[in-house]
Amino acid sequence: MDDLRLTASPAGAGTRTHIQVGDVCIGRDFAIIGGPCAVENPEQALEAAWAVKRAGAHILRGGAFKPRTSPYAFQGLEEQGLEILRVAASATGLPVVTEVMDTRHIEAVAECADILQVGSRNMHNSTLLKELGQATRPVLLKRGMNATLQEWLGAAEYIMAGGNTQVILCERGIRTFETYTGNTLDLSMVPAVRELTHLPIIVDPSHGTGRASLVEAMSLAAVAAGADGLMVEVHPTPPDALSDGEQQLTPAAFAHLTEAVSALVAFMRGDHRTVPRPASGSP
Amino acid sequence: MDDLRLTASPAGAGTRTHIQVGDVCIGRDFAIIGGPCAVENPEQALEAAWAVKRAGAHILRGGAFKPRTSPYAFQGLEEQGLEILRVAASATGLPVVTEVMDTRHIEAVAECADILQVGSRNMHNSTLLKELGQATRPVLLKRGMNATLQEWLGAAEYIMAGGNTQVILCERGIRTFETYTGNTLDLSMVPAVRELTHLPIIVDPSHGTGRASLVEAMSLAAVAAGADGLMVEVHPTPPDALSDGEQQLTPAAFAHLTEAVSALVAFMRGDHRTVPRPASGSP
Amino acid sequence: MDDLRLTASPAGAGTRTHIQVGDVCIGRDFAIIGGPCAVENPEQALEAAWAVKRAGAHILRGGAFKPRTSPYAFQGLEEQGLEILRVAASATGLPVVTEVMDTRHIEAVAECADILQVGSRNMHNSTLLKELGQATRPVLLKRGMNATLQEWLGAAEYIMAGGNTQVILCERGIRTFETYTGNTLDLSMVPAVRELTHLPIIVDPSHGTGRASLVEAMSLAAVAAGADGLMVEVHPTPPDALSDGEQQLTPAAFAHLTEAVSALVAFMRGDHRTVPRPASGSP
Amino acid sequence: MDDLRLTASPAGAGTRTHIQVGDVCIGRDFAIIGGPCAVENPEQALEAAWAVKRAGAHILRGGAFKPRTSPYAFQGLEEQGLEILRVAASATGLPVVTEVMDTRHIEAVAECADILQVGSRNMHNSTLLKELGQATRPVLLKRGMNATLQEWLGAAEYIMAGGNTQVILCERGIRTFETYTGNTLDLSMVPAVRELTHLPIIVDPSHGTGRASLVEAMSLAAVAAGADGLMVEVHPTPPDALSDGEQQLTPAAFAHLTEAVSALVAFMRGDHRTVPRPASGSP
Repeated sequence: MDDLRLTASPAGAGTRTHIQVGDVCIGRDFAIIGGPCAVENPEQALEAAWAVKRAGAHILRGGAFKPRTSPYAFQGLEEQGLEILRVAASATGLPVVTEVMDTRHIEAVAECADILQVGSRNMHNSTLLKELGQATRPVLLKRGMNATLQEWLGAAEYIMAGGNTQVILCERGIRTFETYTGNTLDLSMVPAVRELTHLPIIVDPSHGTGRASLVEAMSLAAVAAGADGLMVEVHPTPPDALSDGEQQLTPAAFAHLTEAVSALVAFMRGDHRTVPRPASGSP
Repeated sequence: MDDLRLTASPAGAGTRTHIQVGDVCIGRDFAIIGGPCAVENPEQALEAAWAVKRAGAHILRGGAFKPRTSPYAFQGLEEQGLEILRVAASATGLPVVTEVMDTRHIEAVAECADILQVGSRNMHNSTLLKELGQATRPVLLKRGMNATLQEWLGAAEYIMAGGNTQVILCERGIRTFETYTGNTLDLSMVPAVRELTHLPIIVDPSHGTGRASLVEAMSLAAVAAGADGLMVEVHPTPPDALSDGEQQLTPAAFAHLTEAVSALVAFMRGDHRTVPRPASGSP
Repeated sequence: MDDLRLTASPAGAGTRTHIQVGDVCIGRDFAIIGGPCAVENPEQALEAAWAVKRAGAHILRGGAFKPRTSPYAFQGLEEQGLEILRVAASATGLPVVTEVMDTRHIEAVAECADILQVGSRNMHNSTLLKELGQATRPVLLKRGMNATLQEWLGAAEYIMAGGNTQVILCERGIRTFETYTGNTLDLSMVPAVRELTHLPIIVDPSHGTGRASLVEAMSLAAVAAGADGLMVEVHPTPPDALSDGEQQLTPAAFAHLTEAVSALVAFMRGDHRTVPRPASGSP
Repeated sequence: MDDLRLTASPAGAGTRTHIQVGDVCIGRDFAIIGGPCAVENPEQALEAAWAVKRAGAHILRGGAFKPRTSPYAFQGLEEQGLEILRVAASATGLPVVTEVMDTRHIEAVAECADILQVGSRNMHNSTLLKELGQATRPVLLKRGMNATLQEWLGAAEYIMAGGNTQVILCERGIRTFETYTGNTLDLSMVPAVRELTHLPIIVDPSHGTGRASLVEAMSLAAVAAGADGLMVEVHPTPPDALSDGEQQLTPAAFAHLTEAVSALVAFMRGDHRTVPRPASGSP
């Protein structure tokens, strides 16, 4: 990592980046983000928003602009999707994170969203990253599906070098040979990011596994690894979803997840952290 | 997975495989295995054995036969290493797991060891697997560094088809493009193995990360993901190790790890499990 | 591939896409593109341009906008680089291909360049791809370093769906675990693209191997595999290059390569192609 | 590569290893090996043997012991398969290469076979490699599907350190994320092996692509890259094959391939090699 001058490098105790979004302080509080893969219509978005709100999530997610393999696949509702998100956010009082894929949309997305997301496919898009360095909103930067840790931190640096230091990293799985899972969730990035930087790191177990049945176990694992939060896909009726149906949770499964996660967070921050911790690997 | 007839498939509630080794029942109790990468000499082995015993580990690990990239690298003490392990086991009362790489050594290794390990490089060695199907010792089967879940379960089936159903799976990281970690620890295999089979699954965060500083965090993550145990490399003085020095823990770091892990296991099996759990992903 | 409706699919004999650029008809003639990784200054660019011209290349390459891992690495000369390229092109009479990374630069790049290149890091940038669907210049679309064939053809479709059917595919190596080479050049994409589409496919053995010593052998292999052209990095003095020094060829090595390649192309299109060819794999 | 002391390293001009097998001198002549994935019965083996003989192949291949993912898949005819191979070899006068998976079978396989093959799944099996260091037959060492070049050369060294320097390397594709091809054939290993060692390197485009339709193009590419030979799967009726049906060639397709390959070999060794060749990459 020595060839990467990093604004994000730790500078001493107590200097971890804190990012206040609505009622949650990311980097200090454990943040739970939930919502559908894509905004499909006002009813679906509102139902999902209330479901994640009731389950205790702090932030609503939902895609308006969707990067897809084929141009003939559903591309998202775009501007209309932003408007629907705004309504769902107002109704529930939840802050919103949504993806921005085009420098020309940054302003419109920033009007609707509290956090601007850079998706995995755009992590190497330095044009977009540089522009987000000028934005006044926090940026949630997903790891590219083929990005090394060094490249991911380099992408963060593109944003931070422009003056926007409100960067949240999000591990979402990398592409490997394994096919049982859609991607391979690389949780070792959680302690690795924490030892190399002062930035918050959250985990997306939905894209990270591609299977609803694995999401809760990997959410708990993320908490135990030291993650600062989770980003989970939730849909009122996953089999009807226009995208990613097999990995989205039902509202009931999400509610179960948040209850289990919250209990584990409380434990990890209470009992467990009272154990005095020496530097790992040293005598 | 439908093309894999699997003796290991679940057959209903309460049928998970239990394997008694010394005082620990793998598959029911949380099992902690610790010890050096390689047995280097009697003093090192005994010191490591006492260190892991004192820290509360249930089983001693240590390599006598070492698979290495170069034939000129340290290959292990071989038969002499087995003898040293036997002495360390007797002194501490710990059962032993050690690797067997050759069908002609199975008998000699089984005399010394309570569990026979198949290493990552031999997971595809069906000759060895078939022969272990005749062994009367449990087999710890590491995932090949490039093996899909289906191939790993196929390897388990080679052993079980021969009549030896005492198989413990061990996730130890897969080979990816990431270089910060030595391998990419694929913790999603823990819930995946649990939903597909009744076999115990443990995690090796030492090879899984290749960095001592990441081992404790990933051990806790493994517990939270539902693993049945851990296998951790511990060396009296890691910088002096003849192999894998950068990933072995000191006795003090291992003691810290076992304390944190034990507390988390207690929590996961207590409070957390009292939350009634619906089938994940269903409403 | 059945979920990808593809404008690029073959529609019968004699329908391969032909793209005329300067004196070369890509898809019919074997096209050789050469030039530096990055435009560094007027002298370097002109010297490289004359070197590739003298060696018989048909098109000049050179980066003005450079995607880099770190924002502090050399980012290219940008608009000034385009101007230098234009001068070098005028002087030598060579057409130019150069990368465009930003929708806002398409017009400026199209004024200087005869072919617009989409780099590996932007293959998933659907915003850029859609915009290039409106461009009147041919597009050279590099495969993403982690892109499957299906995703690559999907990216081509984003461009073609907008009306620009002048797409040239370029295999440039994928990211694997191998470290001796910088990437793994996947030449099987050449016959695969030819059996699935009517688009020209060229090969970049410079990024594809990351080692100058392997470039000529892999160039010849690309020809034999059926590629429609090559894109090779050439620098007057590689050790002085501001980027990719270890993979750029000297003018002398490039001249040797073009001579060997031209002889092989003549052979492949003469003697060899006179062998009547049955459908591979059928009796 | 500096941590690998290599018996295989080049020691100067004119020292490439030559291995005489029947009428072909591997390392000097271009060697073509053909035959079925597995020996299925005497008729199939004999028909395949005559087909490859008629097409001009120098060596017959055929699997008697088959490494498979599932223990319930066809495992080969084993000893009976060796006997069938011996009969087919006698009838046609072709030397034979076949896989050995077990140290206890080396003697029996060596009685039947002129070359002992180590398969991809056993490349890391150092027990087998060491034993083959004592064998008096040449060894064809396939690259492990996840092996780096360094590990592959390390495996060769295990054999050579035992005194058997008759080692032929065989690139057969590595495991990547691409799914259109079964593996990713890494032809850059051909010039890489040639610059690092004096050992012959052949290519298996059948496993390397997993698709019959890509085999001829990749065979020609292997020749152009500088390979010392090819190993191609041929079956009298591929759709009836008990294994690997989709990648085996018909006798007619194989005959077409050998004709095209032979013409290219003649060209590469004639016209092309008369071009004086400077060290690649140097001025």
